[in-house]
Amino acid sequence: MQEPSIFTKIIRGEIPSHKIYEDERTFAFLDIHPIQPGQVLVVPKVQVGFVWDLETDDYQAVMATVQKVGQRLREVFPEKERVGVIVEGLDVEDHAHVKVFPFSGDQEFRYIPDMTSEPDHESLAALAARLAF
Amino acid sequence: MQEPSIFTKIIRGEIPSHKIYEDERTFAFLDIHPIQPGQVLVVPKVQVGFVWDLETDDYQAVMATVQKVGQRLREVFPEKERVGVIVEGLDVEDHAHVKVFPFSGDQEFRYIPDMTSEPDHESLAALAARLAF
Repeated sequence: MQEPSIFTKIIRGEIPSHKIYEDERTFAFLDIHPIQPGQVLVVPKVQVGFVWDLETDDYQAVMATVQKVGQRLREVFPEKERVGVIVEGLDVEDHAHVKVFPFSGDQEFRYIPDMTSEPDHESLAALAARLAF
Repeated sequence: MQEPSIFTKIIRGEIPSHKIYEDERTFAFLDIHPIQPGQVLVVPKVQVGFVWDLETDDYQAVMATVQKVGQRLREVFPEKERVGVIVEGLDVEDHAHVKVFPFSGDQEFRYIPDMTSEPDHESLAALAARLAF
């Protein structure tokens, strides 16, 4: 049997997360080590290694949620120039995920988060409450 | 009337491109200044500034083409670790586009292309012929 990924555990509620959206096929929550504040991870509920391996229905559901999240981030962060998307899968390799985040300019887009920093869960919870839809 | 973007001119054939795929709503071609060799730009035929502004049908069509391109790149570049996606829109601001490219490791993903380099159109044409579907 497949070992549950960290995202599967988050979807099941076995690991807490700052959820902002959920539907039948997808789950979206705040990244605790964001490239920029407000970064959301959109994941399929099915545990598949990379987006290219998703069935069409799950892939399109993920991308539909990505669009909703992108539009929502633009509303909540109007001071930011754009909302960008990155799919690379280098951090979590066993569960497809899409990073969606507001940014202004190339420097912010290319920022490398400090993965060892302690997340401020109080701020993250407040932000998730603002973003949730 | 809206000024045609560089991508609209490419779609119309007014500017030549190394096309790899086209359907009713989308157009995909090789980037002449790729982050990594084989980088494809997927664009909607409708000229809209950013992906979040696309109508659902056009957005889903773009993402469906992105998946086809991603799968195709993985077939053609099996030696590469992954096929990544970037949407940031900092280079061409008046026409939504999605970058899809094969890469191995963080360094390749984060490579900054030299936008002043002269494209090798002969190699690009040969690569487009291999990728086209």
